Amino acid sequence: MKIDKTQEQWIKSVIREVADFPKPGIGFKDLTTLFADPKAFGFVLDAMTESARELNPTAIVGIEARGFILAPYIAQKLGVAFVPVRKPGKLPWQVERQSYALEYGEDTVEMHKDAVGKDDRVVIIDDLMATGGTACATKMLVQKVGATVVGAGFVIELGFLDGRKALGDTKVFSVITY
Amino acid sequence: MKIDKTQEQWIKSVIREVADFPKPGIGFKDLTTLFADPKAFGFVLDAMTESARELNPTAIVGIEARGFILAPYIAQKLGVAFVPVRKPGKLPWQVERQSYALEYGEDTVEMHKDAVGKDDRVVIIDDLMATGGTACATKMLVQKVGATVVGAGFVIELGFLDGRKALGDTKVFSVITY
Repeated sequence: MKIDKTQEQWIKSVIREVADFPKPGIGFKDLTTLFADPKAFGFVLDAMTESARELNPTAIVGIEARGFILAPYIAQKLGVAFVPVRKPGKLPWQVERQSYALEYGEDTVEMHKDAVGKDDRVVIIDDLMATGGTACATKMLVQKVGATVVGAGFVIELGFLDGRKALGDTKVFSVITY
Repeated sequence: MKIDKTQEQWIKSVIREVADFPKPGIGFKDLTTLFADPKAFGFVLDAMTESARELNPTAIVGIEARGFILAPYIAQKLGVAFVPVRKPGKLPWQVERQSYALEYGEDTVEMHKDAVGKDDRVVIIDDLMATGGTACATKMLVQKVGATVVGAGFVIELGFLDGRKALGDTKVFSVITY
């Protein structure tokens, strides 16, 4: 994804930084102000779509909940399937699941067993990559049902947390990095 | 929204019916099979976009989580803001909230206080309208922050539950009805 300094500053300027959320000491990147700006949001969606297009995917997986805001648009632009990965108990049909460690405790992601198959090339989409834990669990989940993960894309990458390492040789793209 | 019998049968044919979810006796309309079909999903999104366009909105509100799959695409097509309404504790900035009754207990929806204002014309989007409880709470929430609700749109309307009544004089559109 190639965006220039001016574009990067523009996008960063429409993202609100909220202090002490979800807990003291954490500065949260609030994307709702980006979503409310149709021009800036469109720029971000189109940039992500072009990066995904280069990977020639057959399906775009969005991670609940904020990945749902991005992935369907990208899937539609590329003319491929949109597949939701959800929190436990939300998907109505047969699921595969993958648990992963959090700072305290663990979490689980689920996807329908028939959502993708062995011929599918999947790009995973979420709003933000921190340590890469959720994206990595989603990658394992996609592989469990037999498909191939060809990339993972984010609006924001917290580069100092080195989430790319967790994703191994999966191609990672992000619009802006902190 | 004008779709003909053939189109209606086509869309219904790609929606999976899952028996006994989330509890025994309930037949759940599983839209993941629609989302995985780019042509059918695109048809539904475009139909909803055209119905929303007629209401001349300045913002499209999507209700977490499945409304997020539809609303951003519609907002982008119309060149207006996308605004998320979320479950409690998810939005990082100052929120307004609205509680509503469920069959057992109650639930709450939240939106950022500055998400829309007195000059905004809002269309609310979700995947399915049953009794209209969530959509009605969302309407009250939008009104609390001072904006006007000009419509509410859904992929599926369970007509026999009469959710339109809960929404009063708000214009309701849905792609298919059961």
